[in-house]
Amino acid sequence: MSSCEFESLEKSLESHLPEAELVEVKRILYGKETLKLDLPAFAVEAASERNFELKAFKFDALQEQLRPPRRTRVGLVQHKIVLPTDAPVLEQINAIHSRVGEIVEVAAMCGVNIICFQETWSEHFLLSLADEPWTEFAESAEEGNTTRFCQELAKKYNMVIISPILEREELHSKLWNSAVVISNSGNVLGKSRKNHIPRVGDFNESTYYMEGDTGHTVFQTQFGRIAVNICYGRHHPLNWFMYSMNGAEIIFNPSATVGALSEPMWPIEARNAAIANHCFTCAINRVGTEHFKNEFTSGDGRKAHHDFGHFYGSSYVAAPDGSRTPGLSRTQDGLLVVEMDLNLNRQVSDKWSFKMTGRYAEYAEKLTEAVAHDFKPKVIKE
Amino acid sequence: MSSCEFESLEKSLESHLPEAELVEVKRILYGKETLKLDLPAFAVEAASERNFELKAFKFDALQEQLRPPRRTRVGLVQHKIVLPTDAPVLEQINAIHSRVGEIVEVAAMCGVNIICFQETWSEHFLLSLADEPWTEFAESAEEGNTTRFCQELAKKYNMVIISPILEREELHSKLWNSAVVISNSGNVLGKSRKNHIPRVGDFNESTYYMEGDTGHTVFQTQFGRIAVNICYGRHHPLNWFMYSMNGAEIIFNPSATVGALSEPMWPIEARNAAIANHCFTCAINRVGTEHFKNEFTSGDGRKAHHDFGHFYGSSYVAAPDGSRTPGLSRTQDGLLVVEMDLNLNRQVSDKWSFKMTGRYAEYAEKLTEAVAHDFKPKVIKE
Repeated sequence: MSSCEFESLEKSLESHLPEAELVEVKRILYGKETLKLDLPAFAVEAASERNFELKAFKFDALQEQLRPPRRTRVGLVQHKIVLPTDAPVLEQINAIHSRVGEIVEVAAMCGVNIICFQETWSEHFLLSLADEPWTEFAESAEEGNTTRFCQELAKKYNMVIISPILEREELHSKLWNSAVVISNSGNVLGKSRKNHIPRVGDFNESTYYMEGDTGHTVFQTQFGRIAVNICYGRHHPLNWFMYSMNGAEIIFNPSATVGALSEPMWPIEARNAAIANHCFTCAINRVGTEHFKNEFTSGDGRKAHHDFGHFYGSSYVAAPDGSRTPGLSRTQDGLLVVEMDLNLNRQVSDKWSFKMTGRYAEYAEKLTEAVAHDFKPKVIKE
Repeated sequence: MSSCEFESLEKSLESHLPEAELVEVKRILYGKETLKLDLPAFAVEAASERNFELKAFKFDALQEQLRPPRRTRVGLVQHKIVLPTDAPVLEQINAIHSRVGEIVEVAAMCGVNIICFQETWSEHFLLSLADEPWTEFAESAEEGNTTRFCQELAKKYNMVIISPILEREELHSKLWNSAVVISNSGNVLGKSRKNHIPRVGDFNESTYYMEGDTGHTVFQTQFGRIAVNICYGRHHPLNWFMYSMNGAEIIFNPSATVGALSEPMWPIEARNAAIANHCFTCAINRVGTEHFKNEFTSGDGRKAHHDFGHFYGSSYVAAPDGSRTPGLSRTQDGLLVVEMDLNLNRQVSDKWSFKMTGRYAEYAEKLTEAVAHDFKPKVIKE
């Protein structure tokens, strides 16, 4: 069985483990069981007709006396590209718009309030050497084609949309990896630029764009306070932490990452962030293998090749109590619908008290010392 | 099947999954396969006679041109208490010394260089209301019974010993939760006090001791630079991070934690720390259920009871490349022997570059702002 064929961890466990052991295995792996969420039959049918996976779960919280439940439904979309990577740019973009549009329509049938797409969702993932006209995919965050497309969906479905794109900023002649946040009114609420840029082996994304300058902005929407930590930023605990310090209740992590590189880290990092910061996190990865006409090397001794590897999907949501949903598949387009009661964040915080026991003021001092070029580490020798 | 009976995740998967799927499931769950480490037959026999689980693995690194391999063997010990919790204090301590002594002897047969015991290893876990003479378990870090016992073992076996105890500091009339680090020469190298003290529901460890004042000390030993992040400190990414900033190559996390509370978080946090900080982490949890003569309540609506819950063992080692060893069992005493080539840390760091892409200077500024009582979070509203 190749790694591109293996559909999902959950499916394998459910097919083979005896019921009593499955319960224990799932508890240890995924925490308190996430409840299945019932969806309208017409939504399930529509997903089936449109050939994408649809899964739905919910996280409950305790009923409080003074606050009503604050239930919100998020949608996570993972999808393959539609046209070959050497088709005309606008055709590629329009074909993806059309595909994702039909997924969003199903999300609306499922009552989704906030939806998030994968990193640079309206195009194949970037590989400049293999793909000459790549800068033409870059669009204005405020007025580009993709933003206008999302604004219409947002208004039509009363949905907040997080739209991660390759951004062209004409003002400063720069490209950015950005997430545009569009309110359910259809207005652009703002954008959040990728804070940490990978330099992994010879794969260096600063070929395309540099570290973001929008800090750790949180967006207050009608359905909760949200933030966007793009892709490689998930490896940096301080990045998640600062979004949380600014009040994020849900942190989205739109990504594009392949199996050989990161798959065993994928279930760990966003989930650790949900636990450590008493918030929900949503990890979204693209899916499929993207072929390029021009061959390229990857600085790892392998021969030149035409693809970057298999994007393994597996999008999931993690809760502050350490539990998580099963993932979407490793191989197919999918929509994960998750209802969460945001009251759970404060309930878990009141119990586990990480913010109160965190000694942050002392870390602020220590970190300030530690970043100095002449920092002397505290090491005891015999 | 009750949670106290379920022996281990790995055993369940290995018993039921078809081989091809097991390979994929293990890859996704545990990363690159950890190799089995061969042990001398007499060590395996001794462990069997002494009735504890013995597992051994190794993490390799690439051969470098300019640095020889830096292989070190760590031992993680998880054990039950031996005598009832109302036996005389010194008898309880001595019985545990004797039990752990026979495990350490086997560790020596396996060539272990650095061994770490569980949190407050020489006694049952603290519950002051249920256990009146509990302060009598506290010992001097420098001259206590338990330290002297460890010094002899250290010299005898040429082994660095990390000995987490309840420390009595006569000088300031204080109790601490501390790890004493004893060099393979037998000298006390120093101590590392628990930095973060749990207040989880009504379980408040500041009943016993307060936040440590030894900062993020790293100990340079003959076998590598080590640090100790005690128990609840594993929930705080900044804690792991500061040990790493001080140069730790292996961070030990001696713990005492029960199933209902933390089990789904257990495989996540130490492993996330290994990934995020390009180092090895060793998570050690005690095992068994400890009964107290006096009943007590837990502020959760349950009736008064005589135990705190099941300590689920499951000790494991995580590597900087996202891989990890299987865990020790959830139910038995055990010794996990892991050989690691410390060169792997820099190799992974050179590839993934988290320290170079971390923007730490900016976080130092932001964190300093964020801890102020009048901090204004960065929130965008429509």
